[in-house]
Amino acid sequence: MGTSEAQAALTMPLGEAIFTQRAIRRFRPDPIPEADLTLMLQAAIRAPNGGNAQPWRFLVLRDPEVRAEFATIYHEAWWAKRRDAGFLTPEDLPDDPVTRSARRLADEFGQAPVVVLLCATSQGPGAANSVVPAAQNLLLAARALGVGGTITTLHPVVADRVQALRDLPAEAQVVYALPLGYPRGGFGSVQRKSLEEVASIDGWTRPFDSR
Amino acid sequence: MGTSEAQAALTMPLGEAIFTQRAIRRFRPDPIPEADLTLMLQAAIRAPNGGNAQPWRFLVLRDPEVRAEFATIYHEAWWAKRRDAGFLTPEDLPDDPVTRSARRLADEFGQAPVVVLLCATSQGPGAANSVVPAAQNLLLAARALGVGGTITTLHPVVADRVQALRDLPAEAQVVYALPLGYPRGGFGSVQRKSLEEVASIDGWTRPFDSR
Repeated sequence: MGTSEAQAALTMPLGEAIFTQRAIRRFRPDPIPEADLTLMLQAAIRAPNGGNAQPWRFLVLRDPEVRAEFATIYHEAWWAKRRDAGFLTPEDLPDDPVTRSARRLADEFGQAPVVVLLCATSQGPGAANSVVPAAQNLLLAARALGVGGTITTLHPVVADRVQALRDLPAEAQVVYALPLGYPRGGFGSVQRKSLEEVASIDGWTRPFDSR
Repeated sequence: MGTSEAQAALTMPLGEAIFTQRAIRRFRPDPIPEADLTLMLQAAIRAPNGGNAQPWRFLVLRDPEVRAEFATIYHEAWWAKRRDAGFLTPEDLPDDPVTRSARRLADEFGQAPVVVLLCATSQGPGAANSVVPAAQNLLLAARALGVGGTITTLHPVVADRVQALRDLPAEAQVVYALPLGYPRGGFGSVQRKSLEEVASIDGWTRPFDSR
């Protein structure tokens, strides 16, 4: 699929894509057509990045065995992050919707029919930062195609196993693991602080007067 | 402006926004209507972010004196980055389009009628990563409104002066400075490596077979 075909295929208005995007963490098992995956990746690589170095690599996991292996790694990484925060057992976890939803994803990661490992081709925060906009392009294109997903991160405790999983070179780093699939449940809007709380004009303490 | 009005206003198809986005570094002096700035910020705060913590603050610089002061800081930061890379004078710089364009921006930063400082409310790479998707939403919304911009970063050498510039609290960090304005010259497509070069499936060395 060429660039112009990919451009023409994403017909959803930008406003609808942006304002109805939300993190999707429960997936139906239906596969994502290869043409739609291609579209998402074509959109991803148009993203801005420092000096057009394009320090990104997209490792798509679709094989059921590979996904199952990665799901085990993700589960361990998720709990390692919880332990770092002082939560050692399920009973320790805060009882709020964000935590419940994240924990369910940690349990069900393998149900996503596709996982994209968004990698940077070198270590360090600069390279990582430079590939993040590509994740947002990918998720917006997914939204326009009815595919949901979310941004997840790993934990140093699993770094060696991720590196070994599919022959990632030592210099590469996984910036995000994006589970993708058709949502169980709907898209819909998100809860956000108001613009007045987070935007200011010509001075930190001078609220942006949105019209 | 409410969320539903903002959603309705961004009518450009997602494909057109993504595939015709490019870094804009030369600006006409025309101001950006406040309603359009609001739209861009409304789009920005819909972006995914870790645990919905929304660790972002948008400091909009529009006052000419503030922008001129920031432009001086940006120029110094740009040259500090070049010196780190071993380029001490203009004659040392590589003669390629990316460098020429970036250097021109460093000289003309003050011509952008608006600069958005995208800040994270805490230090460290985690908070910085979590605000980057908002920058891409902002730039896509800008594109849909005919406004151009680009992602730029600063340098530790100017950190104190940026912090003092508009009373940024010590715990905040500027992740990106986004100059925004109507482009001199056009939008248009970008040069990117092919999908085959950057995407693989079920193994690092197995190319993604795009259809």
